[in-house]
Amino acid sequence: MRHDNVITSKQLSREDIETILDRAAEIDADPSAVANAYPETILGLLFFEPSTRTKLSFETAMKRLGGNVIDIGSIESSSVKKGETLADTVRVIEGYADALVVRHPKQGSATMAAEFVDVPLINAGDGAGHHPTQTLLDLYTIRENAGLKDLSIGIMGDLKYGRTVHSLAYALSNFDAHQHFISPESLQLPREVVFDLHQEGASVREHESLGEILSTLDVLYVTRIQRERFPDENEYQKIAGEYQIDMNTLEAASDDLTVMHPLPRVDEIAPEIDETAHAAYFEQAHNGVPVRMALLDLLLGDAQ
Amino acid sequence: MRHDNVITSKQLSREDIETILDRAAEIDADPSAVANAYPETILGLLFFEPSTRTKLSFETAMKRLGGNVIDIGSIESSSVKKGETLADTVRVIEGYADALVVRHPKQGSATMAAEFVDVPLINAGDGAGHHPTQTLLDLYTIRENAGLKDLSIGIMGDLKYGRTVHSLAYALSNFDAHQHFISPESLQLPREVVFDLHQEGASVREHESLGEILSTLDVLYVTRIQRERFPDENEYQKIAGEYQIDMNTLEAASDDLTVMHPLPRVDEIAPEIDETAHAAYFEQAHNGVPVRMALLDLLLGDAQ
Amino acid sequence: MRHDNVITSKQLSREDIETILDRAAEIDADPSAVANAYPETILGLLFFEPSTRTKLSFETAMKRLGGNVIDIGSIESSSVKKGETLADTVRVIEGYADALVVRHPKQGSATMAAEFVDVPLINAGDGAGHHPTQTLLDLYTIRENAGLKDLSIGIMGDLKYGRTVHSLAYALSNFDAHQHFISPESLQLPREVVFDLHQEGASVREHESLGEILSTLDVLYVTRIQRERFPDENEYQKIAGEYQIDMNTLEAASDDLTVMHPLPRVDEIAPEIDETAHAAYFEQAHNGVPVRMALLDLLLGDAQ
Repeated sequence: MRHDNVITSKQLSREDIETILDRAAEIDADPSAVANAYPETILGLLFFEPSTRTKLSFETAMKRLGGNVIDIGSIESSSVKKGETLADTVRVIEGYADALVVRHPKQGSATMAAEFVDVPLINAGDGAGHHPTQTLLDLYTIRENAGLKDLSIGIMGDLKYGRTVHSLAYALSNFDAHQHFISPESLQLPREVVFDLHQEGASVREHESLGEILSTLDVLYVTRIQRERFPDENEYQKIAGEYQIDMNTLEAASDDLTVMHPLPRVDEIAPEIDETAHAAYFEQAHNGVPVRMALLDLLLGDAQ
Repeated sequence: MRHDNVITSKQLSREDIETILDRAAEIDADPSAVANAYPETILGLLFFEPSTRTKLSFETAMKRLGGNVIDIGSIESSSVKKGETLADTVRVIEGYADALVVRHPKQGSATMAAEFVDVPLINAGDGAGHHPTQTLLDLYTIRENAGLKDLSIGIMGDLKYGRTVHSLAYALSNFDAHQHFISPESLQLPREVVFDLHQEGASVREHESLGEILSTLDVLYVTRIQRERFPDENEYQKIAGEYQIDMNTLEAASDDLTVMHPLPRVDEIAPEIDETAHAAYFEQAHNGVPVRMALLDLLLGDAQ
Repeated sequence: MRHDNVITSKQLSREDIETILDRAAEIDADPSAVANAYPETILGLLFFEPSTRTKLSFETAMKRLGGNVIDIGSIESSSVKKGETLADTVRVIEGYADALVVRHPKQGSATMAAEFVDVPLINAGDGAGHHPTQTLLDLYTIRENAGLKDLSIGIMGDLKYGRTVHSLAYALSNFDAHQHFISPESLQLPREVVFDLHQEGASVREHESLGEILSTLDVLYVTRIQRERFPDENEYQKIAGEYQIDMNTLEAASDDLTVMHPLPRVDEIAPEIDETAHAAYFEQAHNGVPVRMALLDLLLGDAQ
């Protein structure tokens, strides 16, 4: 892989993705082989927005490679509050750390930040923009459970605002997946995303109801419909309810259906599904560690 | 010791306790023998309530064993704020960490959390429930200073709301200690705790004044009387004043009296006592490290 | 160096300073030589005021020496909120850590804290008091860029409230520097500082305008003029504008002029200067790491 920074999943070729997923699988199979690979490496975490699993999973990944992290902490206690620009902050932290992970509410911020530093920089979410490591762990989870070949995947819920969904859709277009998008009309994929996917030659179908295509799916990727998108609580309750799944819903599904969710969930997936073979969402969260270990290893190894 | 989780001090037999305290003493005597015992281990800290010394002392314990920690951080910046259940949160973090420490405001939460994960889980306080590692470090401090044999201990202050006190009392009933409880009537031990202690065959006496029994004590364990328990400030001042100690108070005590306090203190113990041989409260706080190292070692060693 | 604690820069002799800077230069030249020097050492960070770069740079320094840190975290989530005194807090954390770094809003607090603990303690800022490691990294940056011999330095901006500036001025008086202080009249150096500097035999000149002496300077140290010092926004805008620098300003400067700033900056230094050879402020921030590594090494090495 020849990248200094990982900013978008669009930037990664199919070959890049496979290199990362292959390395993640190797690490997953034998983590102790890399447990002391980067004993002198410090990863700088700059999360200008709240995050639990992404931040902890990067932290875990670096520590499982034998390295360490420093964390700029919350905005409240940082120089950012004194009016420092992102460009200045990253240039300071660059002097402390060997690589940076940045989450920032403004779209494009990671691209901008990367221009100011010489150490590898990974985008961990830039507002409505990109979140490539989420996409990589999603792809890894799909590959481990259903395979990426001839994949039929349903992506359901809030498709309008979810950067996770857009990034995944773009990445899947590299793998000739049959992509079904299931959502209420008001939360459909943005037209420009559909247009882009068609340009990429992706196989895209849109549905308002899961029932239409559930039986044909290998993977069902559920996302949360956020209350705050709806001016009216009743409207929210009615619509959200139609895109929640339980054991009853899954009766029409294949026995091999893999259910995914980026977490945290609220009530999109009934807890009764957790104990079934369908549930892959906790495994999906856990896969953040080997995937991010692989990515760090490839970036830091190249940098050495 | 054959436990996967440590949830309450009631669950620990006298033999369990002695195993842990013996191991703590070994570690205390030669910490460098275990300084690299768990180089690949990550401890997950989930503190859903503020804590300084408990959290830092677990963190220190894991690091002094050569391991590392990840910290879910404050609730404000976590997925919990987005409505994630504790059961989901622990199942995610389980994928990052080799053992978990959980503090949560709801009684019973640690028991519940432990049911959802396969890694060892330690309860670091569940509301009005239990806080077993505080009890273990209290016992360790008592054993080092006064011995647990034929012990006469006074426990003073807020005995009604203090989970620390209840856990310690239960544990001491394993060691045939003479337990004296000293408090204003309104902050007496709950009747059900007294009943349980009698059931366990504990030697329990209640007093309203320290003077009655001070001279007979080997250990005086002081706890804080919280202002917020009293509707009236004057009432608080009057009562709290009677359960504060200074050099004057200790004139009637044995020269060997050990004074303990779970800290933080406000004005229960006059600073003039700090420099005397009576004061064991800072040592007590420090003992959190070897005791938690011992506990982690026993849990993680068993898990390996 | 024979100090257990580093509280003020006044306490450091010229020889002490040179020992620290020499060690920092050695470490900077070959950091891997010390990458595993303190594998069993834990540094306790007690920041009772917000800080980004000072805290992260101490954390990085300790980790680059192979050690680890524990961080008491924000005040909000700590025992301090329950009314614990600083003396109690440091005595507890002393039991967890091998050295302490303390920042506290009250002047004199570091001196007081050091009296209560036996481990080495470093002052990372005590209100209007001292911040000796900032001074050390400033001196290191000056020495690397312009040399400390026959130095002509301009210190500009808020000279009244800036502890950074006062500490640096005292330290420079050890090195016979020609010190020029440039500020609006309302933000001049306090008279007692000027008096003290004269007592130390320092060469001190005060100016209201940079133009008067810019061409003679080897180093220009810029600090921020804080909006909140001015009751009137227009007054602030007018005055602050006169103490900001851009490429235009620097036309009158020597080609070798080194521009420094403790950061974060707001608009005191135009971004167009960042890419020039004048700019040393990011390097200055980065120098916090080798300088603090050197200081920790000298304190911990002595303690061993």
